[in-house]
Amino acid sequence: MGIKGRLIVGQSGGCTAVINASLAGVVEAALPDDRIGDILGMRHGIEGLLRRELINLRAEPAHVWPAIQRTPSAALGSARYKLSEGDIERILETLRELDVRYFVYIGGNDSADTAHRISRAAEHAGYELHAISVPKTIDNDLPHTDHSPGYGSIARFVSTVTQEIGLDTEAMRRVDPVKILEVMGRDAGWVAASASLGKQRPSDAPHLIYMPERPLSRERFLRDVQECHAQHGYAVVVVTETVRDETGESIARTDPVFSQDAFGHRYLTGAASYLSDLVARELGLRARFDKPGTIQRMNMALASEVDVNEAYMAGRHAVRAALEGETDRMVSIERVSSQPYESRLGLVPLEHIANQQKLLPDEYINQEGNHVTEAFREYALPLIGGEAATYPRLRAVPFATLGSSVPAEA
Amino acid sequence: MGIKGRLIVGQSGGCTAVINASLAGVVEAALPDDRIGDILGMRHGIEGLLRRELINLRAEPAHVWPAIQRTPSAALGSARYKLSEGDIERILETLRELDVRYFVYIGGNDSADTAHRISRAAEHAGYELHAISVPKTIDNDLPHTDHSPGYGSIARFVSTVTQEIGLDTEAMRRVDPVKILEVMGRDAGWVAASASLGKQRPSDAPHLIYMPERPLSRERFLRDVQECHAQHGYAVVVVTETVRDETGESIARTDPVFSQDAFGHRYLTGAASYLSDLVARELGLRARFDKPGTIQRMNMALASEVDVNEAYMAGRHAVRAALEGETDRMVSIERVSSQPYESRLGLVPLEHIANQQKLLPDEYINQEGNHVTEAFREYALPLIGGEAATYPRLRAVPFATLGSSVPAEA
Repeated sequence: MGIKGRLIVGQSGGCTAVINASLAGVVEAALPDDRIGDILGMRHGIEGLLRRELINLRAEPAHVWPAIQRTPSAALGSARYKLSEGDIERILETLRELDVRYFVYIGGNDSADTAHRISRAAEHAGYELHAISVPKTIDNDLPHTDHSPGYGSIARFVSTVTQEIGLDTEAMRRVDPVKILEVMGRDAGWVAASASLGKQRPSDAPHLIYMPERPLSRERFLRDVQECHAQHGYAVVVVTETVRDETGESIARTDPVFSQDAFGHRYLTGAASYLSDLVARELGLRARFDKPGTIQRMNMALASEVDVNEAYMAGRHAVRAALEGETDRMVSIERVSSQPYESRLGLVPLEHIANQQKLLPDEYINQEGNHVTEAFREYALPLIGGEAATYPRLRAVPFATLGSSVPAEA
Repeated sequence: MGIKGRLIVGQSGGCTAVINASLAGVVEAALPDDRIGDILGMRHGIEGLLRRELINLRAEPAHVWPAIQRTPSAALGSARYKLSEGDIERILETLRELDVRYFVYIGGNDSADTAHRISRAAEHAGYELHAISVPKTIDNDLPHTDHSPGYGSIARFVSTVTQEIGLDTEAMRRVDPVKILEVMGRDAGWVAASASLGKQRPSDAPHLIYMPERPLSRERFLRDVQECHAQHGYAVVVVTETVRDETGESIARTDPVFSQDAFGHRYLTGAASYLSDLVARELGLRARFDKPGTIQRMNMALASEVDVNEAYMAGRHAVRAALEGETDRMVSIERVSSQPYESRLGLVPLEHIANQQKLLPDEYINQEGNHVTEAFREYALPLIGGEAATYPRLRAVPFATLGSSVPAEA
């Protein structure tokens, strides 16, 4: 079984720390298989196929793949490109001309949609093509998979730096008592929620987490921060970059003080920048913000080993499935057990994936809508490798300054 | 030699990844010495002494110190506090009352000034006190020391994430071709300069580095970015948060479009946020920014081993010097050799340190004022441990799409 032909692979959407691990998995599974001829890489996703910007991956030295497996970003180049109907026809023509029989696309919802449409078009045209997508998104918003490669690594980064930011803000609380960390997340709060994974005690950071699944009122936000500051002497707040107010608009865009009309020019400030300014002007507390941006999805030092391995295995699984005759499927990760963590790979029809989004379910968000539940932590902890970085604190026994000095004898 | 009495230690100024390593060095050097009675920790620097918020560090379990050595932030709490003359008198009175004979203060310029004034006041009052400061600043702007503990670790973080950001921006260049990374640095560009340490080839990130030592004109900045984009297809720019325009003002505050009058409210946007907006509106190129903020000075996964060790040894050295009768001195790091890297610890009179700043010397900044020189790299590379993270790239041999498919035989 398995028709002879070429294999083509592409990467699409925002980069992650492990999208190259999936690429390495695809290539290393394809290299020794005698049904697969040339292994082609699309430069910048499907655009590379449309423009015939293709590279020959069999020409790479074999030793590059284990190194690429631990290199963040997309080694083939990535893109965000929405296919037109005309594109699909051209793509099919090109695949036929190049005798490509295996099509592997690593990406998120849009990429699943691309693979789905190409697979269907090939079927209609009677051209045998095996199109499989490999999930990739730090947003973790793909349905019908326990989680997506990329999420475990960003979660490990965000949970670790949140503890570090917490220690910093605690130490500096008499100077800058409020810190706001802005993390990624298109419509879902999975990344923001992961900031909680290193929290051991109620007094630890993060004290507040705001996710786009819950609208955030300015009054509510300010009250939360004020209470937290009163209780701990400082506050560490994590927000998703897309957090919205009650009107459903990005919270930084609808403040009356910053109405766009007043500017002439539409200045796009971010959520954390806006909220730290709001804290300063409404509560009179000094607030600063951190916006790691690209750093959070790229950092290799804090990548999750579980994530790197699953991403690699998902790439291999796609090639195996394609060779076994599957098409129009996304590789999925099914959780077998949380303690000890064990997963297996499966396949889901792409029509169930394309343009669908999995938001944080209600049982992962607390009643107040400003933090996560224990159920979320049980879900997410295995994905970062079982435990987040935690740091010791001093016991800090007060010294009774009224006593006389009695030097200890050694 | 060495009078019997108590030792007091404090931490001051912005936190770093290694200021606790210095604390561990101080405490572990003091613990076994029979001239030293109680070891007191000031909560939040000199404020803790003024308010008598002191803790008993001999009450900590001994095993906590190796763990604290690898914990970022300031375990005693930090502060920014400028001493008044009245404060000095009260401090001296308290030290005398508590029979403190050894005063170790870990911090930057302001802390050196504090230690200097306390040391002098004690001398004038005829009270035997040995006051030594331990350098600490990610800004690396203390004079009369080759470098300061804290710098090597932030430099390792910034150089590593710059390579990661570079790979991301290269892969996504058709979507967001300009990326601006904003890093810390009060008046000096040492941190921004360190972004260069992983650069291997001219095409690698960072393409442009702007430091506060050189005024930056908007025209010049836009021309640089445009040229870089034309040449590489993308541009990674690193700026110090305090970068200034030709008038000497922070570049984000003097743009006519964003004049404060137009707002009513004085909105403080950051340098990178401002510059990415400027690129978008003037060059029509999509630009995003990353502002790691606190994360860059706290991250332990990317701390430099050289830095952790030197910070620890500098803490030990302060106690040894104090016991040997020194006072009014800062521990300094003297470079013995760059290859292989070797340093030794020395002492510098505090009057040469207090309120002095060491900016990047001219020979470390290129002619154009938009990057560093090789001399800077030779200086800084040993401090991060000898090499920055670098990642492989594919050879990317183009595939000739006109050829026919000839499946390879395994």
